[in-house]
Amino acid sequence: MATAKILINGQWTDSQSTETFQAVNPATGETLETKYPLSNWADLDAALNAAQAADEIVRDWPGERFAAFLEAYANRIEENADEIAATAHVETALPLTPRLRDGELPRTTGQLRQAAQSARNGEWALPVIDDENNIRSVHRSLGPVIVFGPNNFPLAFNGISGGDFAAAIAAGNPVIAKGHPSHPETTRLLAEAALQAAKETDFPPGFVQLIYRMPPEDGIKMIKDPRIAAVGYTGALGAGLKVKAAADEAGKPAYLELSSINPVFVLPGYLEQKGDDLLDEFTGSCLMGSGQFCTNPGLVILPPGEGVSSWIEKLQGKFAASSCGALLSEGVRDNFLASVKFLIDHGAKLLAGGEAQAGDGFAVHSTLLTCTAEQFLESPETFQREAFGNGSLLVTTSDVNQMTEIARVLEGQLTGTVYLAENDEDEVIYSTLEPVLRRKVGRLLNNKMPTGVAVSPAMNHGGPYPATGHPGFTSVGIPASIRRFSMLQCYDNIPQQRLPAALKS
Amino acid sequence: MATAKILINGQWTDSQSTETFQAVNPATGETLETKYPLSNWADLDAALNAAQAADEIVRDWPGERFAAFLEAYANRIEENADEIAATAHVETALPLTPRLRDGELPRTTGQLRQAAQSARNGEWALPVIDDENNIRSVHRSLGPVIVFGPNNFPLAFNGISGGDFAAAIAAGNPVIAKGHPSHPETTRLLAEAALQAAKETDFPPGFVQLIYRMPPEDGIKMIKDPRIAAVGYTGALGAGLKVKAAADEAGKPAYLELSSINPVFVLPGYLEQKGDDLLDEFTGSCLMGSGQFCTNPGLVILPPGEGVSSWIEKLQGKFAASSCGALLSEGVRDNFLASVKFLIDHGAKLLAGGEAQAGDGFAVHSTLLTCTAEQFLESPETFQREAFGNGSLLVTTSDVNQMTEIARVLEGQLTGTVYLAENDEDEVIYSTLEPVLRRKVGRLLNNKMPTGVAVSPAMNHGGPYPATGHPGFTSVGIPASIRRFSMLQCYDNIPQQRLPAALKS
Repeated sequence: MATAKILINGQWTDSQSTETFQAVNPATGETLETKYPLSNWADLDAALNAAQAADEIVRDWPGERFAAFLEAYANRIEENADEIAATAHVETALPLTPRLRDGELPRTTGQLRQAAQSARNGEWALPVIDDENNIRSVHRSLGPVIVFGPNNFPLAFNGISGGDFAAAIAAGNPVIAKGHPSHPETTRLLAEAALQAAKETDFPPGFVQLIYRMPPEDGIKMIKDPRIAAVGYTGALGAGLKVKAAADEAGKPAYLELSSINPVFVLPGYLEQKGDDLLDEFTGSCLMGSGQFCTNPGLVILPPGEGVSSWIEKLQGKFAASSCGALLSEGVRDNFLASVKFLIDHGAKLLAGGEAQAGDGFAVHSTLLTCTAEQFLESPETFQREAFGNGSLLVTTSDVNQMTEIARVLEGQLTGTVYLAENDEDEVIYSTLEPVLRRKVGRLLNNKMPTGVAVSPAMNHGGPYPATGHPGFTSVGIPASIRRFSMLQCYDNIPQQRLPAALKS
Repeated sequence: MATAKILINGQWTDSQSTETFQAVNPATGETLETKYPLSNWADLDAALNAAQAADEIVRDWPGERFAAFLEAYANRIEENADEIAATAHVETALPLTPRLRDGELPRTTGQLRQAAQSARNGEWALPVIDDENNIRSVHRSLGPVIVFGPNNFPLAFNGISGGDFAAAIAAGNPVIAKGHPSHPETTRLLAEAALQAAKETDFPPGFVQLIYRMPPEDGIKMIKDPRIAAVGYTGALGAGLKVKAAADEAGKPAYLELSSINPVFVLPGYLEQKGDDLLDEFTGSCLMGSGQFCTNPGLVILPPGEGVSSWIEKLQGKFAASSCGALLSEGVRDNFLASVKFLIDHGAKLLAGGEAQAGDGFAVHSTLLTCTAEQFLESPETFQREAFGNGSLLVTTSDVNQMTEIARVLEGQLTGTVYLAENDEDEVIYSTLEPVLRRKVGRLLNNKMPTGVAVSPAMNHGGPYPATGHPGFTSVGIPASIRRFSMLQCYDNIPQQRLPAALKS
């Protein structure tokens, strides 16, 4: 079987490298047939040249043109929705329905269409006109963007179709997508739809391109290359920090979503009044998608009190009785088990799961760990080790003030959640906890699990480091996410005929 | 004479270090009498603790409170305007009038008042309310900010009174100001006014603090300290890159204004029609304030053509006949002369100046250098060496296309200027040059020198690296400059009574 091609300069092209990789069906452990290229620098160099050439053509195009592409692309995805979702299911073991076909796919096309709308109306660009001084400014495109997609959302965060892609395009930039190697065929199908949409809307050939994989050192070289203007990255902390270091050194913007354990604080009044409801709500949120959400609640801080140990026992029962689908890959499974082992080795107690499920796939029994507030506060870094998968760490407290102390030592997080009683009995604790937690998290929730990330203009899917690289930006939520992939351009004393449309008086 | 005190936790306090430094009058070379402390880590640690304590008190205060402080502070500065301006004149040798007393001082109070207005109306924070999903977001304060002020604007960019200070305060953050050691007494007077204003408006003692100087390694340690949330820095490239590396490593926002030579492209039609006007306009802009503006036109790209050599000769005459005030310090003078020597050593030809003026002060004869486009294009990095002071490099071309080639190899700049004819004879060249130059500069100008930086909401005093650390932000221009010192905070499913005022329905 021939090796799959990469999408370079408007053509499906043979890689100039002979190295290949294959994807694996995580539900069976079976290696899938198609070989995909591990690109070398010659491939990347060709992509960079084509992106630059495309950029020179599209850089002054009106938002309408980018909107047209985004909408045509959304349509193309919908036309092939069944095949795309089915392929993603095989490559990720995520449920076909409702997750992929009825959830993530419509979310993806919805994002593309929202981005199109913003590209068309131009409000994302915050135009400011100072007629008196004849000074004007607006956010505009900044050049080719490379987008690294993660493993856990093969559609809605894919480098060729996800939120960063949509945002970078809406701002007017060409994109080189770096697909995640765990779902290459899904990515190829999406790229084909993007290619057709780009042709249909008369974009230059280097406007959207696809590379599946490259050696890490070539990825770093690419980020530093002057033909790349900005970077989007969603993925593991380790690789992400290398991406960040390369972009920082080159002085270019990189928007990174890295790591988050999404603490959930359960205040005493709530546990007493609604503890039973919380059992199901938490179990559902924690185990959904085998726990592979950026906003998975990986840390639960429980109040002191008599009811806690029986609540934990009930939860333990639910976890033991649950069954979860396979994790995304052998690597995800191994990392998950290694993190669980790390936590146990450092004193956490295992309440459920903690080992691989029998069978061919990469599944792990739903895992529950616990430690005390004293343990957590003594080694906060240790107990904040992310265990990406279907598990969570419960922290028991002996004094409500420990809850705020724990918030104080948390690293930056995407989300922070507080469950509190409907009446006002938890308000005093909340008023101490909230200001501390607020600064640590991008999104604060009350009485709601963090796993749903609505595509709302008010969403912040972001947060302080190391959740992301900058606390002022969100990767979900249009139009704010678009502004990331732009530069501020000021026009001083420029006559009307030489101004971009958005800045004419 | 006793050593001056630092402003820590609301008190003028003796430094815990015994090391001191003194300022120098750059017009005479005379060392000024007062000794100022070179702070050690104990001083910085005390400031960090006080800032953190203040932050815990003010973090939920409404914008109105910060507005009240900023306005009280502007009033206090005005009450002591004559002494502040006179002191700045002694410490910087910048002209007392109109520059300091009638230009920079009112600009400073104007900035503080504009920031106050924005703090009050809250529009800078871009609140978004999604009632349907009950998700809301807004930019809010992120914690103590350290602001490093530069040498060249002792008032309008001072760490205790300038644009970054005003922006950080308006966003609701405590500030630790790191004054520039070349004008410590000016900074002390400003800090005293800030202290009185903070008392008058009931701010906690650690809200505004002042350190004059610290060993570089302690500065780096301070930037990385978790009690600091963000950094503002305006100054030299070398130190700035160390600030950036420290902030990057710690994953916190740093807003840096580093280096810019502000290219001016003179198109052939303009030179022919208005060349004589340009002589005076350019000389004025280049030599004003002894050339010590971030937006000083340090590079002029001249068109091919017969008139060029006589234009250069006339400019040479003007530079030779000009006299400039002293540079800001011995260090600035030495760096300027070293850069001029570097350029000459690498092939630039000296047309005027290039050596120190006779007398006691730190003045240098107005300096004009020239090289050819071929030279520039062969070693673009060499000929973009910033020579901060009263001088500029003229680049001659033999073909108009070389102008665009030069734009293509430019590093990121704060400004880029094109002079072109009133009729349309330069439009063809402009249409090739503009798209290339546009991406390299934060502010594009036509037929206007870049040295005036209006405090306008449409201003961009920013640009791609290495002009600054991020192309999406401006340090001048309210409200955008305020948003830099904030984090995006989302509220998901939070009841009305627990929302900040800006997000209530």
